Amino acid sequence: MQLHNFNSGPSILPPEVLTQAAAAIHNFNNTGLSILEIGHRTSWFVEVVQEAQQTVKRLMGLGDEYEVLFLQGGATMQFMQVPMNLLDENGIAAICDNGVWGNKAVKEASVFGKVQVVSDSSDKKYTYINKHIQLPENASYLHITTNNTVEGTQWHSYPQVNVPLIGDMSSDIFCRPTPFHEFDLIYAGAQKNMGAAGVTLVVVKKSILGKISRKIPSILNYQKHIEAGSLLNTPPVFSIYVSLLTLRWIEKEGGLAEMEKRNTEKANLLYNTIESLPAFYCPIAKEDRSIMNAVFFLTDPTKEQAFLDLCKKEGMIGVKGYRTVGGIRVSMYNALPLSSVQAFCILMKNFAATI
Amino acid sequence: MQLHNFNSGPSILPPEVLTQAAAAIHNFNNTGLSILEIGHRTSWFVEVVQEAQQTVKRLMGLGDEYEVLFLQGGATMQFMQVPMNLLDENGIAAICDNGVWGNKAVKEASVFGKVQVVSDSSDKKYTYINKHIQLPENASYLHITTNNTVEGTQWHSYPQVNVPLIGDMSSDIFCRPTPFHEFDLIYAGAQKNMGAAGVTLVVVKKSILGKISRKIPSILNYQKHIEAGSLLNTPPVFSIYVSLLTLRWIEKEGGLAEMEKRNTEKANLLYNTIESLPAFYCPIAKEDRSIMNAVFFLTDPTKEQAFLDLCKKEGMIGVKGYRTVGGIRVSMYNALPLSSVQAFCILMKNFAATI
Repeated sequence: MQLHNFNSGPSILPPEVLTQAAAAIHNFNNTGLSILEIGHRTSWFVEVVQEAQQTVKRLMGLGDEYEVLFLQGGATMQFMQVPMNLLDENGIAAICDNGVWGNKAVKEASVFGKVQVVSDSSDKKYTYINKHIQLPENASYLHITTNNTVEGTQWHSYPQVNVPLIGDMSSDIFCRPTPFHEFDLIYAGAQKNMGAAGVTLVVVKKSILGKISRKIPSILNYQKHIEAGSLLNTPPVFSIYVSLLTLRWIEKEGGLAEMEKRNTEKANLLYNTIESLPAFYCPIAKEDRSIMNAVFFLTDPTKEQAFLDLCKKEGMIGVKGYRTVGGIRVSMYNALPLSSVQAFCILMKNFAATI
Repeated sequence: MQLHNFNSGPSILPPEVLTQAAAAIHNFNNTGLSILEIGHRTSWFVEVVQEAQQTVKRLMGLGDEYEVLFLQGGATMQFMQVPMNLLDENGIAAICDNGVWGNKAVKEASVFGKVQVVSDSSDKKYTYINKHIQLPENASYLHITTNNTVEGTQWHSYPQVNVPLIGDMSSDIFCRPTPFHEFDLIYAGAQKNMGAAGVTLVVVKKSILGKISRKIPSILNYQKHIEAGSLLNTPPVFSIYVSLLTLRWIEKEGGLAEMEKRNTEKANLLYNTIESLPAFYCPIAKEDRSIMNAVFFLTDPTKEQAFLDLCKKEGMIGVKGYRTVGGIRVSMYNALPLSSVQAFCILMKNFAATI
């Protein structure tokens, strides 16, 4: 049976990335050694890191004022690492709470200092993005979650503010051309659009660092990682390599413009299909709908399980909504082919015709 | 050319682990999906984590008073995570400084409170393990590095103390039967005896947690990871799977007793060869020599480069000493076959005959 992988993350990767990753486990770059067995300070691996850093910068169109790091711990580590490095005693972490992950960012930042939720869409169950931001005078930075994986919303343009802008781009990085230069720090767990789980991309403008007095452990200090060329200690070698393969794939396929073309086509097809079928509805504000994760529901909730059963039977993987939201969630990351969305839409139509 | 992989870490893995890991990138457990593309909360992956946890406990002979976690960030993260979770304002982190890594543990702990170096072998350039420990009265715990990868020393029995004993076992975990129950917290970066880089094993006795008042970010809080069954956030899926494959391999081969038999045979052969050849010498105190990493020198240091060149020519990988120590370092982790040490010893003899 042909499987269609709509997992929300870890999620589908391009077939050629998988083929290359498996080959490198047997023999990395004709070294005769596995990628799992080489030293991280060999020129072989230093070249992997440097090519990955350069590719990220090229895709982002960023210059030498930014540094690219490959760290560990996922976005959850960044929820605390950002305030640990940037929030001092007199400042306020200004955070937009438009979903589960923004909410967690609020909680973790509060360990390090004052936090203010500067926009909040919980009044409508996070079905839209609240863009009305009231920044406090002494905000140290503004943090947004650019795509809300769980709720299916996405910022389509970013707040213009006069404090450093921090973006958790875990679930929509590299999905389209993006004004990355509007951000001062961007982070993303790799396991959606950028590779396998186990590595976190951090892109940081150097000028925002070094402004607080808190003592920071080396492993959590962005500046120390920069000084070490992202090789402060043993990095997640294989995950970084899979990210490099995925970054190469994005460029080879045509870069972010091509990703946007594909992602928009997939998302339009799915959202239009939902709108066309009374059996389904999408409660998300139209202007805030995510092109990565579509969250929607059965109009008759008693039919939901039957629909999920059918999805399973037809090889549609990972379409059950997040546990706190319910319903259906279809994730359409870069590597998901249009044909999978087409197959899913046919299934929706067939199901709608039977009820 | 046959390669012999003496890398200090990331290092050699069993060939069948590599074969199984590569196969899982194509098709994990007949799911039709890659191990890189499956959700970490699927029953497929939860079973991987649970089997890995159970195998660790079985190999360690530990009961339910201990918990097994698979975290990220390597030993360097543990250097700060241990004091963050265990060192309060009135306590002292007692740390043995018998090498580069113990020294780093001292530095990172000092971010969180008082630290006392309770034994130190720097007087003889770390060529032995100073076992004369003077614990301060209010020590919160004692931290040792069970094997000094860089310097080639290893604790062959452990200090008996009445405070929690913490062991950084990154480079000798599972090398032989070990009284793991003497420890209250054990950690190890996986990339030597336990798999690929990107995951860190932490085994912790639950009763030592929850005794300090510091606010701890979720991602660094051992208790939160325990409550989440080591799935607090997206874990390093592939690295955990490779650890499971390696743990299975250890058990299948005969467990820790068999590992000790093999490792002792390899280490004896190498150290005896060094002793037998006047061209080489090992400055490490005999009773403290590591069975994992042998550090030694050319008696005539002007011959060192010629020896390293010969090693390279003959496919002996990773035998150059650490940059601060120099000389030769031969790492003989579990997966290294005796035949590699035999080949290396023949090369030493041949080299010695030419000078």
